[in-house]
Amino acid sequence: MSSPADTAPGGAVRQASLREINLALLLGRIAAAPRPPSRAELATATGLTRATVSAVVDDLIGGGLVTEAEPAPRTGAGRPARGLLLAGHGPAGLGLEINVDYLAVCVLDLAGAVRHRTVHRADLRPLSPAETLARVAELARRARVDAEAQGLTLAGAALAVPGLVGADGVVRLAPNLGWREVDVPALLATRPPLTGAVPGLPALVVENEANLAALGELHAGQPGVTDFLYVSGEVGIGAGIVLDGALYRGARGFSGEIGHLPVHPEGRPCRCGGRGCLEPYAGQEAILTAAGLTGTDVAGDAVRLARLATGGDAATLAALAGAGTALGVAVAGVVNLLDLDTVVLGGCYAPLARWLIPPVTAELSRRVLAAPWSPVTVRPALLGGDAAVVGAAGSVVRRVVARPTAWLARAG
Amino acid sequence: MSSPADTAPGGAVRQASLREINLALLLGRIAAAPRPPSRAELATATGLTRATVSAVVDDLIGGGLVTEAEPAPRTGAGRPARGLLLAGHGPAGLGLEINVDYLAVCVLDLAGAVRHRTVHRADLRPLSPAETLARVAELARRARVDAEAQGLTLAGAALAVPGLVGADGVVRLAPNLGWREVDVPALLATRPPLTGAVPGLPALVVENEANLAALGELHAGQPGVTDFLYVSGEVGIGAGIVLDGALYRGARGFSGEIGHLPVHPEGRPCRCGGRGCLEPYAGQEAILTAAGLTGTDVAGDAVRLARLATGGDAATLAALAGAGTALGVAVAGVVNLLDLDTVVLGGCYAPLARWLIPPVTAELSRRVLAAPWSPVTVRPALLGGDAAVVGAAGSVVRRVVARPTAWLARAG
Repeated sequence: MSSPADTAPGGAVRQASLREINLALLLGRIAAAPRPPSRAELATATGLTRATVSAVVDDLIGGGLVTEAEPAPRTGAGRPARGLLLAGHGPAGLGLEINVDYLAVCVLDLAGAVRHRTVHRADLRPLSPAETLARVAELARRARVDAEAQGLTLAGAALAVPGLVGADGVVRLAPNLGWREVDVPALLATRPPLTGAVPGLPALVVENEANLAALGELHAGQPGVTDFLYVSGEVGIGAGIVLDGALYRGARGFSGEIGHLPVHPEGRPCRCGGRGCLEPYAGQEAILTAAGLTGTDVAGDAVRLARLATGGDAATLAALAGAGTALGVAVAGVVNLLDLDTVVLGGCYAPLARWLIPPVTAELSRRVLAAPWSPVTVRPALLGGDAAVVGAAGSVVRRVVARPTAWLARAG
Repeated sequence: MSSPADTAPGGAVRQASLREINLALLLGRIAAAPRPPSRAELATATGLTRATVSAVVDDLIGGGLVTEAEPAPRTGAGRPARGLLLAGHGPAGLGLEINVDYLAVCVLDLAGAVRHRTVHRADLRPLSPAETLARVAELARRARVDAEAQGLTLAGAALAVPGLVGADGVVRLAPNLGWREVDVPALLATRPPLTGAVPGLPALVVENEANLAALGELHAGQPGVTDFLYVSGEVGIGAGIVLDGALYRGARGFSGEIGHLPVHPEGRPCRCGGRGCLEPYAGQEAILTAAGLTGTDVAGDAVRLARLATGGDAATLAALAGAGTALGVAVAGVVNLLDLDTVVLGGCYAPLARWLIPPVTAELSRRVLAAPWSPVTVRPALLGGDAAVVGAAGSVVRRVVARPTAWLARAG
């Protein structure tokens, strides 16, 4: 809970940070509780005195982070205890997503409810990065107006991008967008700020879209599932790797490039410059081409493919079977390497999961050495195609919950 | 340092475990120090009083875990401080390795010196698991006699096996040995114990060979290198994944099966039942076959290949180039997925690294998306072909260092 800076030599906690620790501790408990806990239950669970709990909870309520549930029905003597839950007003997170064929924006409140959502469909490849970011900024501006009209204050933004993103927010490479060394924070700095500033919290985080989607899925999923591979199918294919309840980012934050796992080493050329990568076999455009649907606009393609497959269109079914087999070959490699027991199909794979899961599972059974002892579950993303943008907004919300004093200092 | 059981509610450390914590703390400091620290330096580094340090160090010296360095030359007034280092007598670790074409045994003392080493070369595939384990037990018996003659006491054993090993020590599958559901602890239990018993420490740990080799490499390597892929080439190909200074084992301990990463999905059949895995393209037997060396006995083959390659034998050079390319395809996939900056070639790949590194590096440059920002170092294992058996013995030694009270209770 406390960072090293909060701890004096010898392990004693400095007085100044005690309040900060208790605020974060109780807010975290309220956020994680399966049903709204009472002040008394929080005292029992944390070992803090009831007086301390009451004082800290009052601060959290006063700052708009926590609210009291409707009074419980009176079941015995005395005043019924009121449950505490995260506020649906106060701070909210702004999630943004740039993909090859759409932009998306969403606002999530602390309680996890989506309060605003827009998807802007367009092939973004002809646009310059500055033009694309201008559209993103305009979508963000409208989302902010809508959020403020609902009494919410945006506490920060996270932007999902399909590519390699440095810790400085510079997109090193997004091959399917044609981006290379795009300094997103610098390009956005010339425009009005996306959100209100909260000292101590980042105003904007730029992150790989599959990583943010995996985080969204982690927090939307069953509490027990802490290790999984999230595969995000779009024009490109990315992956987020969650190990032990945390995103695994790799040495420089560039992990998860499953789209460039070789499936036919000397096969089709790939936009990355290599050959035989997964992407030209199982990316959204590869599926469209195999289904005989080239030349159409890229918007809404997963839905169109699902409709054709439901109707029994032979070319579409064959295209999905082929993509599923290629995906299964790559995923089997990952499972052999990392021994993960859950694989989540997201992005355009979510609505197509019904046709992709059988060939993926067939390759896993055939290729995973530990399959007899270690069955692998393959399932569609709980958040469907929205996982990245919802995960982005959720990452902002979780930063507020983890450091409530940052928000309270601003509000106060 | 302390497990949850050592900590009373509220975070207070129970008195009984304080000595245990201090013993482990100081022994760990002595083990990690770049040069033998004095008692005064330990007191400064840990914040313990000099009296406590002296008492704890006396216990460690008395129990045979620590020894004093030769007196430093007198440089000023007063008695020169004597440096403390791990003892080269006292407890030692027994490392054992079963591979397809050899058995190996080694004894490592606390100071990390190899005190005994035997390699028994033979094709073990015709033998039953019980027959193979009988040979292992006989090698272990001789190693124990030799260790005891040197004043060492074996504190436990670790056995490296090329396959999937359950947490219970049962080898679920070792395809190249033809083992399936082999209960190693049960089969060894019918024989005299391999080592003396130390209550609180496991007498025998069975573990995947690439995992133990990766741990050996981690502790033999530069202190700063905490994230790498260790690839172990033998008849089979395994990998150990080290993330943030710790072995990544996966959901059930079955991680690292790089040998079954597909490199030509519908290509050569593999012993695992799949097709086109890395192993039939870059395993030791695949290299021998490609070099026109089939039908020979399997002992000493890496050395033979290295000799032929050094002499410019065209078939051998082509075989190594082909194996290196296949290995590079698979390793590029792993690096794209995990964003690791170091790849270590071990097992039979260590003596062949000179010929394998160029094609591996070529595939990495070609296929790794982040290569321009995240250069990958490929190098031979520091421990050469011994990494697994040395890593096995080292894992025993590190357990003693992590829990000195277990050893001291036995010794006292």
